Amino acid sequence: MDELPGSLGTSASLALRFGQTIFSTAALLFMCLDVEFYSYTAFCYLVTVMGLVVPWSMTLVIVDAYSVFVRCLHHQPRIITIIILGDLALSYLSLAAACTTASTANLLLYLDGSYCPAKLCTRYQLSAAMAFLSWFLSLGSSLFNLWLLPSL
Amino acid sequence: MDELPGSLGTSASLALRFGQTIFSTAALLFMCLDVEFYSYTAFCYLVTVMGLVVPWSMTLVIVDAYSVFVRCLHHQPRIITIIILGDLALSYLSLAAACTTASTANLLLYLDGSYCPAKLCTRYQLSAAMAFLSWFLSLGSSLFNLWLLPSL
Repeated sequence: MDELPGSLGTSASLALRFGQTIFSTAALLFMCLDVEFYSYTAFCYLVTVMGLVVPWSMTLVIVDAYSVFVRCLHHQPRIITIIILGDLALSYLSLAAACTTASTANLLLYLDGSYCPAKLCTRYQLSAAMAFLSWFLSLGSSLFNLWLLPSL
Repeated sequence: MDELPGSLGTSASLALRFGQTIFSTAALLFMCLDVEFYSYTAFCYLVTVMGLVVPWSMTLVIVDAYSVFVRCLHHQPRIITIIILGDLALSYLSLAAACTTASTANLLLYLDGSYCPAKLCTRYQLSAAMAFLSWFLSLGSSLFNLWLLPSL
């Protein structure tokens, strides 16, 4: 089972999934603890996408933790394929969300302070940075699993 | 050679690459025929990325056209791997560029007409739409080639 670090069921995969959960939750919290996010479509989109990434990563954290600490799971090509497709789709969505949020926040800050106080805009930027990190880890997971697929 | 439509050297691949070339050139032209694009980082980024996508797609159009019309090329796993990696990297870059451009153009239009006359902003939006189409075709190419790789 431990033949490829980073693929489903290994401790490296557990670390990647854990990072995804942390970063996507952080992105969601930075955006949502403020009430004004729904005035811009880009921010609503980030919240929607992160609302998809959080349960996905949490589920896979549980699967990996079970496989690492309790009982090694058998790899099934069909399940790995579904996980790869889900990861790829979510990584594209979260990259898009991170880019739109980053550019919107930067533009609001650059154009005029009145649209967005500096303190609020910094939080939007932090949220975008967290979404970028979540995308990066999600891409890593999908590539590791993709590498494993032909050998199954 | 024609075992999988859409993989390197087939006529479907030629059509995909041709579409990529057209859409990325259109995105570049919509953005560059105007002189003011360098006042926003997002637009400069789109121009940079499309400046990478255009020569990449053109090279692969030539390779595919040679393979379809002149002489069937032999698939080499190493070359296919390089093409898949290049396609994936460029598809992520062009998605990011399209998203940032779309959100910036929409926000400029939404905030105030003075930042960007409606006619100019429509051109920015068209450029973003072309970049999205180019991303979509590029993703298709990379997935078709990825599907081919394990059988080599």
